[in-house]
Amino acid sequence: MTTPFPKSPTFLTIDEPFRFEGDLYDLEVEGTIPAELDGTFYRVGPDQAFPPMLGDANPFNGDGMVTAFNIKNGHCDMKMRYVLTQRLAAERAARKGLFGHYRNPYTDDPSVKHLSRAVANTNVVLHNGVLLAMKEDALPYSMDPHTLETKELYNWNGQVTATTFTAHPKIDPATGEMFGYAYAAKGEASDDIAIYGFDKLGNKTWEVWFKSPYPGMIHECAISEHYIVLPLMPQVMDLERIKAGGILFQWEPTYDHMYLVMPRGGDAKDLRVFRAPNAMPGHVINAFDDGGKLYLDLPVASDNVFWFFPDKNGHAPAPPSLRTDVTRWCFDMNDKNSAGVPTVMSNLAAEFPHCDDRYVGHAYRYGFMQALDFTKPYNADRAGPIMGFFFNTFLTMDMSTGKYKSWFAGDTSSTQEPVFAPKSANAPEGEGYVIGVVNRRDEHRSDLVILDAQRMDEGPVATIKIPVRLKYGIHGNWVPSVANK
Amino acid sequence: MTTPFPKSPTFLTIDEPFRFEGDLYDLEVEGTIPAELDGTFYRVGPDQAFPPMLGDANPFNGDGMVTAFNIKNGHCDMKMRYVLTQRLAAERAARKGLFGHYRNPYTDDPSVKHLSRAVANTNVVLHNGVLLAMKEDALPYSMDPHTLETKELYNWNGQVTATTFTAHPKIDPATGEMFGYAYAAKGEASDDIAIYGFDKLGNKTWEVWFKSPYPGMIHECAISEHYIVLPLMPQVMDLERIKAGGILFQWEPTYDHMYLVMPRGGDAKDLRVFRAPNAMPGHVINAFDDGGKLYLDLPVASDNVFWFFPDKNGHAPAPPSLRTDVTRWCFDMNDKNSAGVPTVMSNLAAEFPHCDDRYVGHAYRYGFMQALDFTKPYNADRAGPIMGFFFNTFLTMDMSTGKYKSWFAGDTSSTQEPVFAPKSANAPEGEGYVIGVVNRRDEHRSDLVILDAQRMDEGPVATIKIPVRLKYGIHGNWVPSVANK
Repeated sequence: MTTPFPKSPTFLTIDEPFRFEGDLYDLEVEGTIPAELDGTFYRVGPDQAFPPMLGDANPFNGDGMVTAFNIKNGHCDMKMRYVLTQRLAAERAARKGLFGHYRNPYTDDPSVKHLSRAVANTNVVLHNGVLLAMKEDALPYSMDPHTLETKELYNWNGQVTATTFTAHPKIDPATGEMFGYAYAAKGEASDDIAIYGFDKLGNKTWEVWFKSPYPGMIHECAISEHYIVLPLMPQVMDLERIKAGGILFQWEPTYDHMYLVMPRGGDAKDLRVFRAPNAMPGHVINAFDDGGKLYLDLPVASDNVFWFFPDKNGHAPAPPSLRTDVTRWCFDMNDKNSAGVPTVMSNLAAEFPHCDDRYVGHAYRYGFMQALDFTKPYNADRAGPIMGFFFNTFLTMDMSTGKYKSWFAGDTSSTQEPVFAPKSANAPEGEGYVIGVVNRRDEHRSDLVILDAQRMDEGPVATIKIPVRLKYGIHGNWVPSVANK
Repeated sequence: MTTPFPKSPTFLTIDEPFRFEGDLYDLEVEGTIPAELDGTFYRVGPDQAFPPMLGDANPFNGDGMVTAFNIKNGHCDMKMRYVLTQRLAAERAARKGLFGHYRNPYTDDPSVKHLSRAVANTNVVLHNGVLLAMKEDALPYSMDPHTLETKELYNWNGQVTATTFTAHPKIDPATGEMFGYAYAAKGEASDDIAIYGFDKLGNKTWEVWFKSPYPGMIHECAISEHYIVLPLMPQVMDLERIKAGGILFQWEPTYDHMYLVMPRGGDAKDLRVFRAPNAMPGHVINAFDDGGKLYLDLPVASDNVFWFFPDKNGHAPAPPSLRTDVTRWCFDMNDKNSAGVPTVMSNLAAEFPHCDDRYVGHAYRYGFMQALDFTKPYNADRAGPIMGFFFNTFLTMDMSTGKYKSWFAGDTSSTQEPVFAPKSANAPEGEGYVIGVVNRRDEHRSDLVILDAQRMDEGPVATIKIPVRLKYGIHGNWVPSVANK
């Protein structure tokens, strides 16, 4: 018998498990899907397939469920599949949960200790014709980008020996080279970091190992023409704590957050660490360098966002009490004694950004994000499942000024991470569409909306109706068909 | 671009198109699925895949979407697939609706005039290892009972020349022989009827052709040990009307309804017609004969149930104004001049019945149905999509007395046709479970509930949670695993 899922914050009614894999051919559309859109919007999020063995579970613990929205000739088809991980296969065979606490292998059922704990629920990235379902605590799984069939736990044909790999690699649009990194790269709580580069055919071009200043979470990275940056968060791992059955991460309110900068192709000795006051760096919008000055754009939260990873006293701030500033850091790579200099571009609570992928690592103008517009109705009783609140707005921000054009999704709607699709391969930067899932909470279903990125305030050009409720995804990407043959 | 579906009664918000095919492994369960349940509950209903070419559509016009609930060892898996008919394949290729009005080939797009119009949306029946998705206006489609893969438009390997076949064949549990019939058997509006029998290996054992007293709808049949009965409804077809673009059926308020009785294995000359006053015979509970007296149990509605097939003045009664009586007819086959004698067993508005399949055609005691309990809240503004109202109750009726035990699904819930699963192959009649879908209207999702057939008033022994809303199905069947290898 399948026990019911716990009625806990992780399995809130508003985001309860969905678990239905399938295909929906030719979604109903209101408005008009732009004829020039030709590609796939891939997204992934946690959707726990079995009630957790130890009761409640961390919201990031759910099995990765991938959605592909294929858009062509004004039509949109949808496909949803679980990443069929070793973990999911084992739980299906047993017809029950077998894995213990989040990133704590010491709490698993003994029957699964030889298996990968990967849930592959954080991002889906296409590189070298392989769709990678990624989560930073394990290696990714490869999937067929067209059928979403799961292939294998992926170590780049033996080229990667780290036990983990980020969910946020970056692809240089000029070369097709992909950069990624591993933290806790020699096992949970280890302070080992590895950075990897792969050319457009998946051949390893770079590998460097070094020690982290402290064994903290590194969720993101950024590349510029000459550098890669890893923001280190004061969420700190401890091996003894998980051996005792505890939580891997603990917020350390006295720790600096840091930016680890490495020249592309560099050695461990080339690492430079920029310290910054205690805060929580968020998702990268973009980075670029110019004459030895490295610029990094990202939202920075004033305190710990992850209420489920509190400090040693069990304290975490209520998510709505946090301040999030969209920040541009400048790191002077020519002055060895310089500190990073932050400039607040906007105090809008914006997150889950993308830039125009054709400008990753290069000077750019536009960021595309979701935000929580606090001037709109906000109902704390219906707080969001992962970040503790619902985003409600999509926007295009001019990163040269911090000004933005936005679209509010509605009083009973909430947004998920949007992506950007250019109107054509040669369109000017930011000429294209912001595409994202909106949950219609009172209707228990979702829409996929398409907005003109330069005319966000005019509302969707197309609203693609989804007859089911998509659980809150984490990240995704737009892949033009020409890049996905 | 896919035009939105019309906002019409057929595509009510409460039963709007679903269109999502997929698999859900190990549904969440509240309570306990009885360990002895081992089989599949197949159901099917209309789920229009593309907005109708001519605007609004008859609710019976939707493409057949089959659901299989596989129950074993206290677990339940769910699979949903469209019947991939010629019609659906053509519309998918065109990415638009190509078929015109209900059962009116004269209104179709010229590109599809060589294709079957079958939508296969009314019933799913397993016989001879073949799962048949059936609708009375065409031949059925065969499907793989395990994968739900659609195989072919099915004419029993050439043994059936009629152009139609009922969605309500009956299988004699003593022999495994299946009986069915075709009306409009030589094309829409024709008054030709054919009856067929097939042995348990699918070999034709009987075929008889005759003319109908009038070209009316015959939705159901019943078998007894020696007879087959076809109830003829005063919903009358007219070829000229459909050629002029009109509706195939028109209610004839002055016509008798009739019971066409044929001895099993008989010739056309053996047909006997029992006339009865204008009314609308419903779905068959069961029939049996004893010493030349043939008994037929079914609900009979006082007037036209199908609001979408009105009389010549365009009039149809409001569905809640109808009276439905569960009726036992007695036909004296030894007295050539006798009329049928009805006995009202219950005036409960009960419909969509099943008996214990092991007693089909034989003396029996229990009927399992859904009903509209008018003593409970009824909101006409939220009327049901097909029959014009929502059923809200499951029940087991003692057909020897008309008394019943029932379970009310809740003020904001509505029921779909239940089936009966015996506790074991040898269990006494009616010892088993009533299994049916319940729509939780305010939650936009459904449950599959399992009730002890003899203890309906005690409520579900198991509630299987479905995270999506199942559209209103029409009919289905329970198939034990031992019969489905």
